[in-house]
Amino acid sequence: MVDYIGIESIQKIVGAMGPAVFIEGLAAEIEADYRRWGEFDKSARHAIHSPTGVIELMPTSDGRMYSFKYVNGHPKNTAQGLLTVTAFGVLADVDTGYPLLLSELTVTTALRTAAMSALAAKWMARPDSRVMALIGNGAQSEFQAIAFHRMLGIRELRLYDVDARATEKLARNLNALELHGLCIVPCASAAEAVKGADIVTTVTADKRNAVILTPDMIEPGMHINAVGGDCPGKTELHADILLRADARVVVEYEPQSRIEGEIQQLAPDFAVAEFAQVLSGAAPGRAHAAEVTIFDSVGFALEDYSALCYLHKLHGLQKDGRPQIDLIPHLDNPKDLFGLLAPGPRLGPVAQTGVRPAATRISAPHALATP
Amino acid sequence: MVDYIGIESIQKIVGAMGPAVFIEGLAAEIEADYRRWGEFDKSARHAIHSPTGVIELMPTSDGRMYSFKYVNGHPKNTAQGLLTVTAFGVLADVDTGYPLLLSELTVTTALRTAAMSALAAKWMARPDSRVMALIGNGAQSEFQAIAFHRMLGIRELRLYDVDARATEKLARNLNALELHGLCIVPCASAAEAVKGADIVTTVTADKRNAVILTPDMIEPGMHINAVGGDCPGKTELHADILLRADARVVVEYEPQSRIEGEIQQLAPDFAVAEFAQVLSGAAPGRAHAAEVTIFDSVGFALEDYSALCYLHKLHGLQKDGRPQIDLIPHLDNPKDLFGLLAPGPRLGPVAQTGVRPAATRISAPHALATP
Repeated sequence: MVDYIGIESIQKIVGAMGPAVFIEGLAAEIEADYRRWGEFDKSARHAIHSPTGVIELMPTSDGRMYSFKYVNGHPKNTAQGLLTVTAFGVLADVDTGYPLLLSELTVTTALRTAAMSALAAKWMARPDSRVMALIGNGAQSEFQAIAFHRMLGIRELRLYDVDARATEKLARNLNALELHGLCIVPCASAAEAVKGADIVTTVTADKRNAVILTPDMIEPGMHINAVGGDCPGKTELHADILLRADARVVVEYEPQSRIEGEIQQLAPDFAVAEFAQVLSGAAPGRAHAAEVTIFDSVGFALEDYSALCYLHKLHGLQKDGRPQIDLIPHLDNPKDLFGLLAPGPRLGPVAQTGVRPAATRISAPHALATP
Repeated sequence: MVDYIGIESIQKIVGAMGPAVFIEGLAAEIEADYRRWGEFDKSARHAIHSPTGVIELMPTSDGRMYSFKYVNGHPKNTAQGLLTVTAFGVLADVDTGYPLLLSELTVTTALRTAAMSALAAKWMARPDSRVMALIGNGAQSEFQAIAFHRMLGIRELRLYDVDARATEKLARNLNALELHGLCIVPCASAAEAVKGADIVTTVTADKRNAVILTPDMIEPGMHINAVGGDCPGKTELHADILLRADARVVVEYEPQSRIEGEIQQLAPDFAVAEFAQVLSGAAPGRAHAAEVTIFDSVGFALEDYSALCYLHKLHGLQKDGRPQIDLIPHLDNPKDLFGLLAPGPRLGPVAQTGVRPAATRISAPHALATP
């Protein structure tokens, strides 16, 4: 049996902690994993593009656990009442190859992306940052707001989206949360939202090179958290922002960001640092208060690895047992796979079947198939 | 909600048809898909190796549907009572990126590998082949036996494995099936099993270069179905067999087979044909009765695509409804993902949760999220 976190389970898990605490805990896991960057098997994600979107697989491993995420990006989906991004993923035991956990990652991707954004900003934004512009008020925007309020101490949040209903929805959701001391300011344009902000977060979804931020909008000392540009042909920043003499650009995993990030607009030798270098001290996140720092975020497999490990731990702590699914067979004789299909009385005792709640404790990896 | 085929469902589906009919139907699907080879996005699978095994992702798409398989290979697992190979996969709608089906593929991989082996043999073995040697009597062997009995008309099956208990298990399972006119002959050595055979199937699991077949064992006119050598450093045939002047080697997808197949032992320009070329008539499967034909099989993503499409169809036909899981959220407003986590009465109506049986008919792809 394989542990299973569906939508109902993620609602329970996040609901019990609250999203802010969940995000802060996840950011700590992501930071701990980035600190052991060298242990991970890294590759640019596998993408299959179509005229309407992209479907990607993001695998990684630290030699002990293996994870992958399936994620799509289809900006036109919202017009059909569907999500732009859906995702799920699996955590597996490297020693046996057995999957341990299948989890929804649609909600979790929004949580982990916000955790990563705030984590990077902790190392890159000015410590006295209190005002954030949030450009793009779609499915991920609440998570960014909560993360920056909790982890950076943001106290004024300026909202802008080309779709005014998206901004209304975001403002309504945030006001309902009554986040301590947070002032919500809907704005009439991106320029108005950005003017005087300490941090600018862009999280728009167009699958093309859009210019959400132009050079004239950028002020010394700003931190730009560019989340939405995350596949070939999809960017949010005017190239001249990246080319400013006082700009410092940090990416997650350089080979992937060269293809997918804002830096796809620039020469392949344009200087960037990887976030792991910032953590290790090999590169500064920010050298002085007047620099323009840019986190050119596309999302890397390590962050989903962290999220799946974090979820697996939380799933195992659920008091009323944890859901599991019969994705992998259990056999008395592992060479007798065919026995699963044999007719008659052998069928019953050989296979463990169906969906059942399990004991609350997480099994040791090897106990999975022999509970 | 996403359609779900676990172990219980695959037992029902295959049990209702019988494995032979299932395999024959699947082989027809695989053949139809190989005939439109040019429509598929192809890449060598993504593999992460560890000292004890390998974990792989195998994605493909024809522009209409997308599929991937997760599969591990851990030969040492059987000593711990675990399977060498476990697998699962997903079928998704390219237009929206939404997953449609999550399915177990441990049992299904054995069925599809047997279907592919028999399909290739139909185009490569002598039509009067009646005797097959089956070297390696582990988890996949029954499936190979059933496929070749059904699709090739094999009437004498000679079994050999270094583990005599594996051979006993295979003989017992096959005898219980009472396959029409099939004579089962356990042998004391691989050489004894192979001598005089029309077809030789090798399906062993060692993760290293093993020499299961040596040049002296091979006779003119034989067809060799080499299934077990399927990752770097894992081969079953002595290189001189491939280098025979009268040998003809067919692979599934050349770039992947150069890395993983028996031909990894040979120069990169060693001549091979792809199976799609055999189907299209661009290359012969066998030029004359005395040739030694070799299907150097490693398993390709297209075969899992075919299997997932086939399963999705069969799953939808189940009379008592089909299981589904809440892997992907349904939202009334797709920009309000956060609404899923909002406390209070909104939680209930917004999310569809839990595991439930669905209507018997397969939904159109777009109906998935708006049932």
